[in-house]
Amino acid sequence: MQAKNVATDNVKNAGGGISPSVSADTLGQEMFELIARMYPLCRSITGAGVRETLAIVKEHIPLEVHEVPTGTAVFDWTVPREWTIRDAYVKDRNGVRVIDFKQHNLHVVGYSVPVHRTMPLAELKSHLFSLPDQPDWIPYRTAYYHESWGFCVTHNQLLGLVDGDYEVCIDASLEAGSLTYGEYFVPGEIEDEVLFFAHTCHPSLCNDNLAGIAVATMLARHLRTLKSRYSYRFVFAQSTIGSITWLSINAARLQRIKHGLIMAVLGDAGNMTYKKSRRGDAVIDRAVLHVLQHKREPYSVLEFLPHGYDERQFCSPGINLPMGRLTRSPNGGYPEYHTSADNLDLISPAALQDSFSTYTAVTEVLERNRRYLNLNPMCEPQLGRRGLYRKTGSYKDIGAREHALLWVLNLSDGEHTLLDITERAGLRFDTVSAAADDLHASGLLREIHSHGEST
Amino acid sequence: MQAKNVATDNVKNAGGGISPSVSADTLGQEMFELIARMYPLCRSITGAGVRETLAIVKEHIPLEVHEVPTGTAVFDWTVPREWTIRDAYVKDRNGVRVIDFKQHNLHVVGYSVPVHRTMPLAELKSHLFSLPDQPDWIPYRTAYYHESWGFCVTHNQLLGLVDGDYEVCIDASLEAGSLTYGEYFVPGEIEDEVLFFAHTCHPSLCNDNLAGIAVATMLARHLRTLKSRYSYRFVFAQSTIGSITWLSINAARLQRIKHGLIMAVLGDAGNMTYKKSRRGDAVIDRAVLHVLQHKREPYSVLEFLPHGYDERQFCSPGINLPMGRLTRSPNGGYPEYHTSADNLDLISPAALQDSFSTYTAVTEVLERNRRYLNLNPMCEPQLGRRGLYRKTGSYKDIGAREHALLWVLNLSDGEHTLLDITERAGLRFDTVSAAADDLHASGLLREIHSHGEST
Amino acid sequence: MQAKNVATDNVKNAGGGISPSVSADTLGQEMFELIARMYPLCRSITGAGVRETLAIVKEHIPLEVHEVPTGTAVFDWTVPREWTIRDAYVKDRNGVRVIDFKQHNLHVVGYSVPVHRTMPLAELKSHLFSLPDQPDWIPYRTAYYHESWGFCVTHNQLLGLVDGDYEVCIDASLEAGSLTYGEYFVPGEIEDEVLFFAHTCHPSLCNDNLAGIAVATMLARHLRTLKSRYSYRFVFAQSTIGSITWLSINAARLQRIKHGLIMAVLGDAGNMTYKKSRRGDAVIDRAVLHVLQHKREPYSVLEFLPHGYDERQFCSPGINLPMGRLTRSPNGGYPEYHTSADNLDLISPAALQDSFSTYTAVTEVLERNRRYLNLNPMCEPQLGRRGLYRKTGSYKDIGAREHALLWVLNLSDGEHTLLDITERAGLRFDTVSAAADDLHASGLLREIHSHGEST
Repeated sequence: MQAKNVATDNVKNAGGGISPSVSADTLGQEMFELIARMYPLCRSITGAGVRETLAIVKEHIPLEVHEVPTGTAVFDWTVPREWTIRDAYVKDRNGVRVIDFKQHNLHVVGYSVPVHRTMPLAELKSHLFSLPDQPDWIPYRTAYYHESWGFCVTHNQLLGLVDGDYEVCIDASLEAGSLTYGEYFVPGEIEDEVLFFAHTCHPSLCNDNLAGIAVATMLARHLRTLKSRYSYRFVFAQSTIGSITWLSINAARLQRIKHGLIMAVLGDAGNMTYKKSRRGDAVIDRAVLHVLQHKREPYSVLEFLPHGYDERQFCSPGINLPMGRLTRSPNGGYPEYHTSADNLDLISPAALQDSFSTYTAVTEVLERNRRYLNLNPMCEPQLGRRGLYRKTGSYKDIGAREHALLWVLNLSDGEHTLLDITERAGLRFDTVSAAADDLHASGLLREIHSHGEST
Repeated sequence: MQAKNVATDNVKNAGGGISPSVSADTLGQEMFELIARMYPLCRSITGAGVRETLAIVKEHIPLEVHEVPTGTAVFDWTVPREWTIRDAYVKDRNGVRVIDFKQHNLHVVGYSVPVHRTMPLAELKSHLFSLPDQPDWIPYRTAYYHESWGFCVTHNQLLGLVDGDYEVCIDASLEAGSLTYGEYFVPGEIEDEVLFFAHTCHPSLCNDNLAGIAVATMLARHLRTLKSRYSYRFVFAQSTIGSITWLSINAARLQRIKHGLIMAVLGDAGNMTYKKSRRGDAVIDRAVLHVLQHKREPYSVLEFLPHGYDERQFCSPGINLPMGRLTRSPNGGYPEYHTSADNLDLISPAALQDSFSTYTAVTEVLERNRRYLNLNPMCEPQLGRRGLYRKTGSYKDIGAREHALLWVLNLSDGEHTLLDITERAGLRFDTVSAAADDLHASGLLREIHSHGEST
Repeated sequence: MQAKNVATDNVKNAGGGISPSVSADTLGQEMFELIARMYPLCRSITGAGVRETLAIVKEHIPLEVHEVPTGTAVFDWTVPREWTIRDAYVKDRNGVRVIDFKQHNLHVVGYSVPVHRTMPLAELKSHLFSLPDQPDWIPYRTAYYHESWGFCVTHNQLLGLVDGDYEVCIDASLEAGSLTYGEYFVPGEIEDEVLFFAHTCHPSLCNDNLAGIAVATMLARHLRTLKSRYSYRFVFAQSTIGSITWLSINAARLQRIKHGLIMAVLGDAGNMTYKKSRRGDAVIDRAVLHVLQHKREPYSVLEFLPHGYDERQFCSPGINLPMGRLTRSPNGGYPEYHTSADNLDLISPAALQDSFSTYTAVTEVLERNRRYLNLNPMCEPQLGRRGLYRKTGSYKDIGAREHALLWVLNLSDGEHTLLDITERAGLRFDTVSAAADDLHASGLLREIHSHGEST
């Protein structure tokens, strides 16, 4: 499964645009296989699992891996100790492992402190978590930022435990180490950046968020092959502490980020869901909505709220980046969320491919969303003379292309971007963008270089 | 019925908030009895009836009573002569009083000039007013600002009059005197004021506006017992000429009034009605709407229009105070309006109590509507470390309180008040306010002192 | 049909307003007859047909006729050669005219270059245009700005042509000459102008746009008889090249135009359609919408788009005049559009009269849309003292007139025009305007002279 160079072969890069670089079937399957390979690793907010995951990503893109030492102050937080989990089990009096970390890494509560004791079932039970409504699924639980331990089990497993003493062992350590994250920067023509963030801290959960990691990896590989206008930055880091750490380290450079998306939950069969940035009408919000409106599939839009994934940090009041979150089923919105049922069966190559295509379509809008000045603003210029207009014809013959030509001329007064024009005209962005290209080639427009929105 | 000191016993004044100070049943009954006592008095825009009414109010709150001499210029108006009505009747040829002011003070048209003559029925009829559709009710009519006289009668009474001569007597005088109004000021921590206005000029009409007077009286008594942030001012004056007089006298001090409400029609069984201020989106408008939205009862909202009660003056273009009108059934919106059927049967202790509670809830929102600055605006502060967040849990567990904590942090950027945050978050104001209190106590917020809205 | 002096006899010019000047039946019939007289002329963007048409208009209003020489640069365009068409036909081998310009001037493609050749049917067919769906109608086609020739025929005519050679003749010339347009200026009290534009380039087509020419002519004649506040300017010119020429010549004076309308398609049975200006909320947009809302007939409103008639030029980004287009059926919106079926049967005196009335109603709103300052802004002035208010009465008696008095007083703070007040109050403009007249006459208002909106 080494497809590193496929992308460069199939690039269709007309007019500075961005197009999918490998066939849909191939790419969806490739992302699925990438997820399958990362699935068994036990990720957490620190430790070996994250490092191994980033090493796999690095096979596809030249990721820079950063290690931030335990104890580093990052805004109001501190980088925690590194958690190493070697083994964890509960044995019955016969020495049989009735709960076994080696069977599924969700069995241990993430970040559990070490424990090795024998205790009666009654005491053990206060450390066990199950889902009575889904008796065959193991829940996902963590105990960050306060010392405790526990096991997650299926509810049937819990019901099967008989009274008596159990040997409880979590062979873990919490020691000074570091927090590990990956970053990849794709330089473009201008310094303005588009930021993509995928969280890496979840253990064996596919949709949330190996799917986000896989789509981000392939999107980065794809963008790398193009001559893009924007620079693109991909950050693979932990939820909360990872994004806080990255933001803290990069606080002085955030003004370069003009647009961004949180990438998560991108492999399931649900339709796409967009959660708007805190600003609510940022260019990224409008670009994503335009793409979703023209996908011919249902989709959901959520207003910003300060609960959720890492938009909590990227959209905190002192950061306030124009970043939304583009997922499939919203987090919390599907029953398998944060359980062992978020496995390879929940995701599909087709859904991954569709997510990838949606993201590339968004980047195309961002790339081509220029602002022009009509150099003949007094009445219409004579398009026919320039070969831009039908010769004989009647009023009714006009199609989307000619509407787009007229709209671009009419609104290119220095105030409106192509996305503004697209929205007012009710046309497709690519139709408007192609019309602008032709008008520009004819010398009727001049591009105004005010890159992106200011932060 | 002297309950003056009850309020202080039952105050629950947690966190600077305001809560009802006596039990609902007690207070509703107390207001009803207050109305019953004021009901027989013959109020008008000047004269003894108003003075006697204010004297009763003064038994509950230390009202200042002002007398403004006849002839005083008040903006475009002049304080009129004082009207004294001693007796009024129509006697038939047998000397029987067929219309008798002593039976009901609505029988005489308010402000009638004196008359004492004998005249035939045909001439008398041009001075009689009745309601053919409601043949048992006496209408309420006035003849301010032009000299005339008349009687109001039930339609059945009118039909019963036989041809012949009648002795007509209105034993009234219109002489230099004064216009009487009452004012009560409750000082708070800051000079910014909330103004409540109740009109006092209606004779024996309960809902309009003895109910407004009673609720205003008890609201003033209640606020007096609290340590409030705002100062509160209550004005008991006549419709139109009273509010004009008060505004004229106080024109130089109006900029202190940051919020206000016209109190009227507060005792009937109808649901609450709010008529917005001329501004339409003042804090008082939004505070009242928030309270009504969370009352779990239907309510009506009216846009501002320059017809109505004293909002005509308070919202005139040169005054333009942020004042709305909070009533139950809107004026003109119930059949008993301005008739003898607006009596004690139309109102109830429960409705009065509900009106009082709604007003106190509005004052609580005003009191607690602070603006804070998040002192840790770069990413989220670590709430768990401060005991403000659940320790183990999953995404789905979050409740309104945690949402409120996150919203307050996210929007406390110096731009948003708690009411702004409440509206955007779709939460209850008290939930948001309590979250802000906790964050403030934890040192995460600093209050920004820009009191209220500027006028 | 010389009715030139009728208008002055019947003027009802109360209060500076504008009212229809002749009876509806008379005027509708007069416009219909004017159209019937212009109908046979073969108009195009240049040439004799336009001159003859303007000469007929000049019988009603003192039109200035301008000639702009071929080759004159007008913004991005050049005034074209003058097209003279003398005869055009296709003869079969028997010498019979199977297509004959003298039968209908739509038969020749407008601006065809001369041709005189014999050719087989197969070759001829590439120059023939018909409407298969409407086999008895001749389409309207033009070939401006590139050299070609052609004939338009009914589809049945086309089907009737048998194989063989045909003599094809277009006896036309394209030579240096001029572009002809007409202009009429009605001076008012102030220099601010209202501009009406009717296009003149269509040959025998009644609704589009002899109807526009006829209504414009009669509207001009009507306004001429009045003492108006605004100055009014009427331009009769070609679509596209005519409006571009006029705008180019008058570019330095456009800032005087405060409102304007494109007049077209005003004779058919359809309901009125308004297409907003590029600004979307200009006073002209709001004035037209107010008139349409109160007509008690259905109507359509279209948002601006840069495709259509001469709003393409008047609303180009460098011109951007506050001009909308007020038509009946929208162009392209009726099947007879741009075919021989757009003849005298499609239009009616009643529809023309209704269009005229709508336009005059719009001019009345513009004329009377003043901005006043309430000179007694502190509380209400005492209306009763000035005879502006009912004396005895109850709250419920108030009618639209008193509401209008109160609204005008309340919102005449220097910020609001009468149209603003009308929209907020939900009243009729004429009610509000009449109330303002009375208040002004009573000395309660002062007019603020900020004429119209700035461009």
